[in-house]
Amino acid sequence: MIERLNQIGEREILNRLKKFMVKGQIEDDTAQLTLTNPNILINTDIFVENVHFSDSTMSPQDIGWKTVAANISDLAGSGVDHIFGITVGIATPAKTSWSWLEKVYQGINDALNHFGGQLLGGDLSRSNQTVLSITAIGSVGKLRLHRSYAKNGDIIVTSGPHGLSRLGLALLTNNPNINSDNLSKSLKIQAIKAHQRPQTGLAALTTLKNCKPSLTPWRAAGTDSSDGLLNALQSICESSYCQAILDPNQLPKANSWPLGLPWEKWCMNGGEDFELILSLPSEWAQSFVATFPLSKIIGSIQKGDPKLMWTNGEEISLSTFSEFEHF
Amino acid sequence: MIERLNQIGEREILNRLKKFMVKGQIEDDTAQLTLTNPNILINTDIFVENVHFSDSTMSPQDIGWKTVAANISDLAGSGVDHIFGITVGIATPAKTSWSWLEKVYQGINDALNHFGGQLLGGDLSRSNQTVLSITAIGSVGKLRLHRSYAKNGDIIVTSGPHGLSRLGLALLTNNPNINSDNLSKSLKIQAIKAHQRPQTGLAALTTLKNCKPSLTPWRAAGTDSSDGLLNALQSICESSYCQAILDPNQLPKANSWPLGLPWEKWCMNGGEDFELILSLPSEWAQSFVATFPLSKIIGSIQKGDPKLMWTNGEEISLSTFSEFEHF
Repeated sequence: MIERLNQIGEREILNRLKKFMVKGQIEDDTAQLTLTNPNILINTDIFVENVHFSDSTMSPQDIGWKTVAANISDLAGSGVDHIFGITVGIATPAKTSWSWLEKVYQGINDALNHFGGQLLGGDLSRSNQTVLSITAIGSVGKLRLHRSYAKNGDIIVTSGPHGLSRLGLALLTNNPNINSDNLSKSLKIQAIKAHQRPQTGLAALTTLKNCKPSLTPWRAAGTDSSDGLLNALQSICESSYCQAILDPNQLPKANSWPLGLPWEKWCMNGGEDFELILSLPSEWAQSFVATFPLSKIIGSIQKGDPKLMWTNGEEISLSTFSEFEHF
Repeated sequence: MIERLNQIGEREILNRLKKFMVKGQIEDDTAQLTLTNPNILINTDIFVENVHFSDSTMSPQDIGWKTVAANISDLAGSGVDHIFGITVGIATPAKTSWSWLEKVYQGINDALNHFGGQLLGGDLSRSNQTVLSITAIGSVGKLRLHRSYAKNGDIIVTSGPHGLSRLGLALLTNNPNINSDNLSKSLKIQAIKAHQRPQTGLAALTTLKNCKPSLTPWRAAGTDSSDGLLNALQSICESSYCQAILDPNQLPKANSWPLGLPWEKWCMNGGEDFELILSLPSEWAQSFVATFPLSKIIGSIQKGDPKLMWTNGEEISLSTFSEFEHF
């Protein structure tokens, strides 16, 4: 028999969730924490059923993992040094099973064990549609990545391939536009993993900090590519008031990524890639790509009204590659 | 013509919301802050349309104000010293008007101007039902209120009257159980204000800190009464493993509060009162009620298996007074 949340009652649900929380935190409505660094980064992301995730393509553990990863990816895109923890707010229908909720928390827990940080507490309510809200808090050190920090002459670097999560979704929903028989098994496994259990730019960030040439200042522009590669670049160009020139032969594609549509589009703006998009002084960019596997130089930054262009001067239209809108 | 969110697009919505944010924060997905005190309190609350609020009884400005107040009330119930700010996540239908969203943010802004703290950022997504998620971050000093800190012999104190918000809701929904002609005008105004534009325990907390007798240690149990007076007391008894003895003649009722049902029930557990419920050493309790207007001694704490009792020894059954369940 399925045990539903409205059969358990709020007090008992919170009691059962205690095992996932930092000891003692659930006794009060607020969590207390002594931070080792007062320079903090804080970020809230909201995830809606059938907008950001679906039970038809992801297990509840995957949903828990991915919401945490997406949130921490934003902190990584700002240069986070250390992750203190997260809070979780969940609104879900009263008929939701306890088992589903417990598995979401298990996935959250797995992600925190992997990425770092503690579960600091949260809130729960009934609703018609499931919504998760995650707030992550971390600290920042010497390197603060800003979208507005790009400079003329910078080199644009990605920390990894793009489009995999979108391919994973296509495979999981049997998208008729692709013939999965033509794809390598390893690409398919990689794509489904990228969709269900994504990694973040945290490892790339550590390398980036460690590989900085000593005479290069701590100035780099960056963001994550959770809204897609082109959206990330566009936001850097707008915030920094500059142009990004991309080499069409150097797009950050995965191994054995096919040619043509929809592949080009998914690489350019499939979304949910959670990689770092960086604009770096040339010597730092060279040092980074020499050190971090799968990272790639994809273009450069020049002065001018914010836009994206190919190396031949042709403008890249965001709408051509648009895949996803939150509204 | 009503301008709907899906006609505006996410980028433009975020652009328009810039005016409410701390300068520069919206350029990146994360907010950066240098805290003046590393001992922090953090709390996330989730508010669901037609569970926690309704457009039929509250303006969008009220909804913004009340969600912030409810969140800050939790920090107050933990003894917060200073509020740094909040993040806001909103999921709302694509057809929601820009005007509604802007007014919610205006209410959030008004509340922050009143209670303190900055709007640090947030997230926005479409959904079927409106959900707000607020995360507040503050610091804590010498006084950390815990539910688990009550001691045998403590005096139970409330910072203000209870049941007003529930009465406000009854008035706003023309509840047939009450005859509003029999109520004083000032009670009605007070009740509607308590429902739509609630205050928090912040002022009481400041007084509590200032009025502590110098030889009394910084030990007090406390929580807010957002889930109702009895629920607050029950949670203190369970966390501290003790019993609360209440004087039926000293319930924290507002001036000219009628006798009988539903009035007793609404005072005891109407919910959304956002007052402080404190368990204090006798001398501190006396000093507090002598100083803070509308505060009241309502009972005392004794040893024993967690339960609530009247002074005549009769047990108070929570279910008799139960009004509200999140599930």
